[in-house]
Amino acid sequence: MGTGQELYKKAKELIPGGTMLLSKRPEMFLPEHWPSYFSKSKGCYVWDLDGNKYLDMYIMGIGTNSLGYGNDKVDNAVKQVIDKGNMSTFSCPEEVQLAERLIELHPWGEMVRFARSGGEANAIAIRIARAASGKDKVAICGYHGWHDWYLSANLANEEGLDGHLLPGLDPAGVPRHLSGSVVPFHYNDLPELEKIIAQHPDLGVVKMEVSRNMGPAEGYLEGVRALCDKHNLVLIFDECTSGFRETFGGLHKKYGVEPDMCMFGKALGNGYAVTGVLGKRSVMQAAQKTFISSTFWTERIGSAAALATLDEMERLNSWDFITTQGRLITDRWNEIGSSLNLKIKTAGLSALTSFSIDSPNWLKYKTFITQEMLKQGLLAGHCVYVCTEHTDDKIEEYFNKVTPLFEKISRFEKGLENVDASLDGPVCHGGFKRLN
Amino acid sequence: MGTGQELYKKAKELIPGGTMLLSKRPEMFLPEHWPSYFSKSKGCYVWDLDGNKYLDMYIMGIGTNSLGYGNDKVDNAVKQVIDKGNMSTFSCPEEVQLAERLIELHPWGEMVRFARSGGEANAIAIRIARAASGKDKVAICGYHGWHDWYLSANLANEEGLDGHLLPGLDPAGVPRHLSGSVVPFHYNDLPELEKIIAQHPDLGVVKMEVSRNMGPAEGYLEGVRALCDKHNLVLIFDECTSGFRETFGGLHKKYGVEPDMCMFGKALGNGYAVTGVLGKRSVMQAAQKTFISSTFWTERIGSAAALATLDEMERLNSWDFITTQGRLITDRWNEIGSSLNLKIKTAGLSALTSFSIDSPNWLKYKTFITQEMLKQGLLAGHCVYVCTEHTDDKIEEYFNKVTPLFEKISRFEKGLENVDASLDGPVCHGGFKRLN
Repeated sequence: MGTGQELYKKAKELIPGGTMLLSKRPEMFLPEHWPSYFSKSKGCYVWDLDGNKYLDMYIMGIGTNSLGYGNDKVDNAVKQVIDKGNMSTFSCPEEVQLAERLIELHPWGEMVRFARSGGEANAIAIRIARAASGKDKVAICGYHGWHDWYLSANLANEEGLDGHLLPGLDPAGVPRHLSGSVVPFHYNDLPELEKIIAQHPDLGVVKMEVSRNMGPAEGYLEGVRALCDKHNLVLIFDECTSGFRETFGGLHKKYGVEPDMCMFGKALGNGYAVTGVLGKRSVMQAAQKTFISSTFWTERIGSAAALATLDEMERLNSWDFITTQGRLITDRWNEIGSSLNLKIKTAGLSALTSFSIDSPNWLKYKTFITQEMLKQGLLAGHCVYVCTEHTDDKIEEYFNKVTPLFEKISRFEKGLENVDASLDGPVCHGGFKRLN
Repeated sequence: MGTGQELYKKAKELIPGGTMLLSKRPEMFLPEHWPSYFSKSKGCYVWDLDGNKYLDMYIMGIGTNSLGYGNDKVDNAVKQVIDKGNMSTFSCPEEVQLAERLIELHPWGEMVRFARSGGEANAIAIRIARAASGKDKVAICGYHGWHDWYLSANLANEEGLDGHLLPGLDPAGVPRHLSGSVVPFHYNDLPELEKIIAQHPDLGVVKMEVSRNMGPAEGYLEGVRALCDKHNLVLIFDECTSGFRETFGGLHKKYGVEPDMCMFGKALGNGYAVTGVLGKRSVMQAAQKTFISSTFWTERIGSAAALATLDEMERLNSWDFITTQGRLITDRWNEIGSSLNLKIKTAGLSALTSFSIDSPNWLKYKTFITQEMLKQGLLAGHCVYVCTEHTDDKIEEYFNKVTPLFEKISRFEKGLENVDASLDGPVCHGGFKRLN
């Protein structure tokens, strides 16, 4: 057992769940064998506590580092902030510059608030939208964080845990008062949303991700926009994950449909904590009627890191590069699937590409891939969150090593070999599925 | 008008409210004249955008920097993190070390979760406590952030804005579903809390600040603890502000009363964003029954900064020093008040000491002090949040400059001079008052 697994055993005694993020729990990857902790990260490489170096062809900090780990330009901007002071009794000018920059990139937007986590940005947006609409009920489609307002969607449904929102996740501790305050809807189903709006006159807000496992059907986003206009609803696009993956800004720029508000997170600060809520003045001004305020939203690193990240993204056209590389990876997976007769399905934005194999043994296969790739110095599984460091040679190295594993999986599928005999430990846990 | 005021004018067009924190709005200090933004901060000095240097005898980053701005030990630890990588697909080992350290300092605590803002830490604690108790209703005393769960206290009361919780602050956008989910109680009034508990069988959680403007009456905290034990309620102490001000850890250590959970924030990372929730295992394990997870809670700077801050606090006995210096300041204010026959009242923890003058012109006097001190290169007003850089010479400089202003105020009070004629701009806004 490596040092990281030893530390994780201790962590589970000290931290409920062992980690701060469900998606970073070692059990989600390779139970009992995942290195779990890092000593160093740079470019698209990560070093574990025993000094082993891995090529990260997996979640890249769960999509935070689209410019790679330890980007020099961003890091230097942060170090300059540290030398000049991260905090003071005054505010930092960088937050105003960052607000200007986000508005410049999204001319429909006029005002901005910043926070330090995606859950917060979502909660801020909902508070402002409810205040602006004067109505409490929210229709949602997608993943929008851990807060009460969102998880309450699971309270309304008798099926509770088995509901389609976050299967396996209990909304324990979410006050039952909120039951019925949120109505989930399915992506690409415009008639359903229309029906929900008709049935809920107290609905004031529609919040959704711009794209799900698949992109929008023709006219879908335009239809949602038209419905919101007709019924005077605040339309929010949650771009925490999708932002800066396919455009220099929100994914909605690709489709030419403008929301009333949107949130950015993850990639915005290239690994430094910063998130933002952008919106039209008419909506954002409602923030003045309520109380949205937190000490650490005033620290300087977040804004400075985001400014440097935006400069570097622009210089590199990072969204183009990561989309191109992601498409390459997706195509290769599909080619391998075809050639081996494996039922491979790919999904997601190209820069956040993922695949699955339609088999009752899928989670075992995923575990097998992670296990065997780890032995060869790669972090890999069912997805690749692409960064600007994922050049062709890295992708080549990945496929050189993963292709024989797909061949093996094809033998498992045909019953020629037994996957169970090939696993060194327990099968990985399934993640939470996003609402379709 | 200085560069900072120019920028703030622009900020108000781009950011609703102009800042991320209500307590940093320039109008709270000196409307139209507050420098508003910093270029640099170091020790207990802050530089504005025009290069003017000020001695900060005011809020010191709203209490985040009890070791002063830009503490070298803490900053170097953060820079090392940047050089080794702030983020990765794995978790950072520092979060486990920090959990251990907080538990070491509070042996009643057994498990920890971290976040990046105080509002989040409060919301996490409430979620876990509700999940652990199986009950939704919460009794609160004190200031606990901006989230829906807390502001809902204003919904239940017909008086709304005029309620005693956050006067002048509207809970617009807080879903009305939450009405009645939170019951405020008054500090040092044990019979009231007992009555509330008797009246609300669905109450599962009591959350409070350990000390308010005044400290606990004899037996009060023990009484609250006994009530919670008797009725099987989760007792939470919010130590976001009070932590590390009088003890090496929570203020509750001074009184020997142990909660079931407590939160730390502000001073924990000496200006870097990190907050934590500490609790007994029996309560904290309820986090496993729900979903509490956020990407940026896994970044490394927060934990590394907190570890270095704790080391430095311990080396300096910072809590002793800042309490001693705060007491000195408080005593001097009282002496001046006596000698000038001004009705000065002091309040708060010594390290967060504040005063007010019992006069209808109080806000004008506060504005006058800030205005005249600013002209002499000091940030000052109605309080001093003390840091380890506030050595005797700084305090001497402060009193040398503020004493003549108190003399002037005494002349205003006697009608010998007119305060209005002495103000260069509008009177400052009143802050929100904490619940007594």
